[in-house]
Amino acid sequence: MASDNAAGAHPDIMSAIARANSLHALAYGQDTQTDQAKKLFNELFDADVVTEFVFGGTGANVLALACMLRPVDAVVCTSSAHIAVDEAGAPEKFLGAKMMTMPSTDGKLKPEDIRSVAHLRGNLHHAQPAVVSITQATELGTLYTAQEVKNICDTAHELGMLVHMDGARITNAAAALGATPQALRSFTIDAGVDVLSFGGTKAGLMFGEAVVFFNKSLATRVEYIRKQTTQLYSKMRFVSAQYVELFQNDLMFKLATNANNMALALYEQTKHHKSLGLIAPPAVNSLFPTIHEPSASQLQEWAFFWDWDLPNHQYRWMTAWDTTQQDIENFAEGVSQALKI
Amino acid sequence: MASDNAAGAHPDIMSAIARANSLHALAYGQDTQTDQAKKLFNELFDADVVTEFVFGGTGANVLALACMLRPVDAVVCTSSAHIAVDEAGAPEKFLGAKMMTMPSTDGKLKPEDIRSVAHLRGNLHHAQPAVVSITQATELGTLYTAQEVKNICDTAHELGMLVHMDGARITNAAAALGATPQALRSFTIDAGVDVLSFGGTKAGLMFGEAVVFFNKSLATRVEYIRKQTTQLYSKMRFVSAQYVELFQNDLMFKLATNANNMALALYEQTKHHKSLGLIAPPAVNSLFPTIHEPSASQLQEWAFFWDWDLPNHQYRWMTAWDTTQQDIENFAEGVSQALKI
Amino acid sequence: MASDNAAGAHPDIMSAIARANSLHALAYGQDTQTDQAKKLFNELFDADVVTEFVFGGTGANVLALACMLRPVDAVVCTSSAHIAVDEAGAPEKFLGAKMMTMPSTDGKLKPEDIRSVAHLRGNLHHAQPAVVSITQATELGTLYTAQEVKNICDTAHELGMLVHMDGARITNAAAALGATPQALRSFTIDAGVDVLSFGGTKAGLMFGEAVVFFNKSLATRVEYIRKQTTQLYSKMRFVSAQYVELFQNDLMFKLATNANNMALALYEQTKHHKSLGLIAPPAVNSLFPTIHEPSASQLQEWAFFWDWDLPNHQYRWMTAWDTTQQDIENFAEGVSQALKI
Amino acid sequence: MASDNAAGAHPDIMSAIARANSLHALAYGQDTQTDQAKKLFNELFDADVVTEFVFGGTGANVLALACMLRPVDAVVCTSSAHIAVDEAGAPEKFLGAKMMTMPSTDGKLKPEDIRSVAHLRGNLHHAQPAVVSITQATELGTLYTAQEVKNICDTAHELGMLVHMDGARITNAAAALGATPQALRSFTIDAGVDVLSFGGTKAGLMFGEAVVFFNKSLATRVEYIRKQTTQLYSKMRFVSAQYVELFQNDLMFKLATNANNMALALYEQTKHHKSLGLIAPPAVNSLFPTIHEPSASQLQEWAFFWDWDLPNHQYRWMTAWDTTQQDIENFAEGVSQALKI
Repeated sequence: MASDNAAGAHPDIMSAIARANSLHALAYGQDTQTDQAKKLFNELFDADVVTEFVFGGTGANVLALACMLRPVDAVVCTSSAHIAVDEAGAPEKFLGAKMMTMPSTDGKLKPEDIRSVAHLRGNLHHAQPAVVSITQATELGTLYTAQEVKNICDTAHELGMLVHMDGARITNAAAALGATPQALRSFTIDAGVDVLSFGGTKAGLMFGEAVVFFNKSLATRVEYIRKQTTQLYSKMRFVSAQYVELFQNDLMFKLATNANNMALALYEQTKHHKSLGLIAPPAVNSLFPTIHEPSASQLQEWAFFWDWDLPNHQYRWMTAWDTTQQDIENFAEGVSQALKI
Repeated sequence: MASDNAAGAHPDIMSAIARANSLHALAYGQDTQTDQAKKLFNELFDADVVTEFVFGGTGANVLALACMLRPVDAVVCTSSAHIAVDEAGAPEKFLGAKMMTMPSTDGKLKPEDIRSVAHLRGNLHHAQPAVVSITQATELGTLYTAQEVKNICDTAHELGMLVHMDGARITNAAAALGATPQALRSFTIDAGVDVLSFGGTKAGLMFGEAVVFFNKSLATRVEYIRKQTTQLYSKMRFVSAQYVELFQNDLMFKLATNANNMALALYEQTKHHKSLGLIAPPAVNSLFPTIHEPSASQLQEWAFFWDWDLPNHQYRWMTAWDTTQQDIENFAEGVSQALKI
Repeated sequence: MASDNAAGAHPDIMSAIARANSLHALAYGQDTQTDQAKKLFNELFDADVVTEFVFGGTGANVLALACMLRPVDAVVCTSSAHIAVDEAGAPEKFLGAKMMTMPSTDGKLKPEDIRSVAHLRGNLHHAQPAVVSITQATELGTLYTAQEVKNICDTAHELGMLVHMDGARITNAAAALGATPQALRSFTIDAGVDVLSFGGTKAGLMFGEAVVFFNKSLATRVEYIRKQTTQLYSKMRFVSAQYVELFQNDLMFKLATNANNMALALYEQTKHHKSLGLIAPPAVNSLFPTIHEPSASQLQEWAFFWDWDLPNHQYRWMTAWDTTQQDIENFAEGVSQALKI
Repeated sequence: MASDNAAGAHPDIMSAIARANSLHALAYGQDTQTDQAKKLFNELFDADVVTEFVFGGTGANVLALACMLRPVDAVVCTSSAHIAVDEAGAPEKFLGAKMMTMPSTDGKLKPEDIRSVAHLRGNLHHAQPAVVSITQATELGTLYTAQEVKNICDTAHELGMLVHMDGARITNAAAALGATPQALRSFTIDAGVDVLSFGGTKAGLMFGEAVVFFNKSLATRVEYIRKQTTQLYSKMRFVSAQYVELFQNDLMFKLATNANNMALALYEQTKHHKSLGLIAPPAVNSLFPTIHEPSASQLQEWAFFWDWDLPNHQYRWMTAWDTTQQDIENFAEGVSQALKI
């Protein structure tokens, strides 16, 4: 229950990698798998988008934002956003840009958060809020509805700002909101998002993420900037081939649905422990229980999971594409044991 | 009442500049005035400190922090700190560092704010809080007592962090807290501050700020970094000479005391307008009245002052070294007129 | 003979500063002197240009380039360019951009230097040469003719690149090339330069430089970026007033002409020392003699001047707006004495 | 013959990846394969080194240099260094540091190149040369002898500078210089190198590079900086497992030896075409033939390879771990055909 990062790659993904290895290919994306993967992204979003592949999630976010920001521009996001707290300052370092963080109890940014900084625009003493970045599903395991994303995009665009979506767990979100391409489109391209970090590693790939530009005018320098962000992978076909596979036979939705379902199962099997404070079923694949000592430490030692908000004794349980019903039962049993202490 | 930035330079400062012009001098600080100014800083703080001069206040802060930060380090400050909101993102851009901002209703950082981010240290996913930056007097016109600064320094040092003080209005603070070198030392070097931005422009100089290293080990590269921050002034004697003059005949304290006194006089002459919400005398040289429309606009048009918190109809009135009793009376009369609308 | 940086400010400039001090003014350039100075720049260049003032020369260059560069762009300049060697890496640090340096024996960039890197454009593995930066007068005391500047601009523009001119000593260049506004325009705006750093400190000001945008489309964010580069001066009128004065009564040309003439006089009085290798009269206000030890050290100790190329025993003598015929005679006598050792 | 980047991964590497996938593991390097790989690096270098894994080669170099540089520091390298020309300015962007490039006809830096910039140290106007970066094997397909590396390290250390080695093709170098761990050590740790980028992708891995700190004092912040450079791979075991495999059964040396041998074979089969200018056998796995048009274009179209120095009609042929004798014969035949045009 540590993280969807701790899972391996799905067997079909492994097979796709092995097939990619048997082919000859030019480096840096001049290969047929990369071509095919890009076409599949167009199909997925039913639009002519620009898709570029990178190594990792922080790299995807930094690359996306680098394409969207002008000098002195700032990013508006929640104070729990991955870009704000979990990327070791990579955005500030590489982008030289301020992250304007908004408190949010549910991990979701609100249109009024954007409006609250609009007065800074045009004042030369302040960094200029120019890009809104939202995470779907959020770092707190919540989901924006398509309408909520649209409201954010409308507000941002009205104010002359752009919208980035950090979709490190976008397949979990898509699975929860309909598990179809149409559902995925409804809260991304159709809602007005300009640039999307489309997560792969947590979705069942071995490695690799994509940056998708719905607003293609922002992509004119993306290939150069990707190299400069250290995110250009020479043997790119090995990432592309994984995405091609992920888009076959609804694999993307199947894996994410399993992760979501297992979180729900874990919720069902542990919610009777009132001390955990699990009062609502998870929207996607994570739970944030409250556990006091010494139960917490004993449970972590037995089956590692991350601290979340230590001062409040809150932890994070996260399921993955490969979590099984048996895993859940075992873990739930472990929870019961630990809470008895 | 716009800002202490709108005032000119004191006549004695002008004379010092004129005298400096009559001398021949080597560039880049290899001159006798700069030597003398540095010695006077040593005397002022009764210690062997490292003092370097720069053009402006943002430059002073950026230079100070650049000397204090290592890669991935972050700065802890209030959400109203000048470095966080009024420097157009210069710290993020030049330092590549995250500003970790703490909400504060009185503009003052608390030891518990520092402790609240201590758990991030040692976690490689997070920028590392390493420097605490406090502003004295604060951007909200409040003052840290010497003991409060000491508590912050003690907490920071205990956690392995350093302390920077943004002293853009340090002379106002010193004037309010005793108007003696001893008073100044009590909340800076004696309290444990590591590096101080010692403001000059708002204190009555034409231009020029100083960065004072009480912790001299942080100054090993300051001269190189100053050049790289674009803050090395070739004809440096013109800044040094102003500081020399500022330290003569208690000029520093006299000018700051006048600014503080005029803010108090303005308070006394306007506090009876209950709608202004001026419920306590100012600690230094600014007042933050509430003014509704159309009074606010009319008053600003007549005698410009800055918006502070527009959504809450709050403005800032600021006095300077050259504000006179007559200025205050005229302005108070204008306030009365405007509030009658 | 150390540097034009070692001179003070001209008496008329001092008077202008004193006058500026007697006025009240809003901060940050919202004052009448700044308005007037900007109008005078329009008149000087007989065009509607954007002019912004900064503290220092490195700041001017960094600000100009920051307005001209997009992500991954690089700057093409000579290997002796001030931005490449004398700014402690400020351009790389603040701009994050590569300086592509071209060897040049006379300090002047050639159109073929620009063409030599044109093949890098469009290749995503390389930083993209996008801005050509030339220095007028050059760091080696040479001058571009108006036609040479035009050839560089034409080549750059043909290749889709922009041209920046570092005019730290532009008044010396203008004085040498005609000492009229028309002469100044011929090698700047008329030749196709996009952005100019217009030096003030070395021209006789106390401090202050200007950045002039002939290509106004590059100036849309200059005021924000100036703040972010730490180059926004609150009491800006004190710089503006100096420029206003510099443009009165041909003061700019008079001061630069004196500096140039004094260098010529020094040349005439020392060229008979064959060991100095002074084989041609100076184009502007510097000479680069060869001096062997122990003569060099003795002379430097007596009247400081800078090393230039120590391995080749080359030094730099530089005259200023305030150098007198008597200074030259004294110095030439000192040279004769030192060479006798 | 395009690049060793165009090859896939060796079958043994693929098997190792598949095995790694069958295991459960914690993320971010807290796994047994990463532990084992680090131990194997210790064994390889017969020393207690710090090894950290990253995604790609540019990332490895940027991370290594970020750990070695202080503010205002500069890197000394040849003008053909990958960090200087083939990383799209990533070093300048992320490090904010100047690359001081030295011309070199054979791609090798010389001790006198280092000495030539030593006089910049201590002068606050200049970026401070602090890290020497050399590439082994070089970008021009040449090799430093162990003694040459030692001379560079001795010179650098004498001057207070550090040495980084970009070993993107270090296995080719090691194969050519003895194909034993002892040979590898002789020109790295034993020669005095401080930090090494140890290439994997070009050596036969699917992806992944290592940064090896012989000078462990430089590694205190490497894990934080890796995250900030966007180079922290969550499922790190997949890189570690590849390195573990590469170090089994001399696989590293076998693969590199094959690449080197195939380049030699290509040389032998094409050197009789005098127009190619192949006058000496390759040191490692690349040849730099001169080919005129239309032969060059026809050959590139038939079997892609990279331009190298187009103005001089020079191209690069590069062999890989999987190049076969048959590939060489086919390609040599193609060369013969193309040259007949």
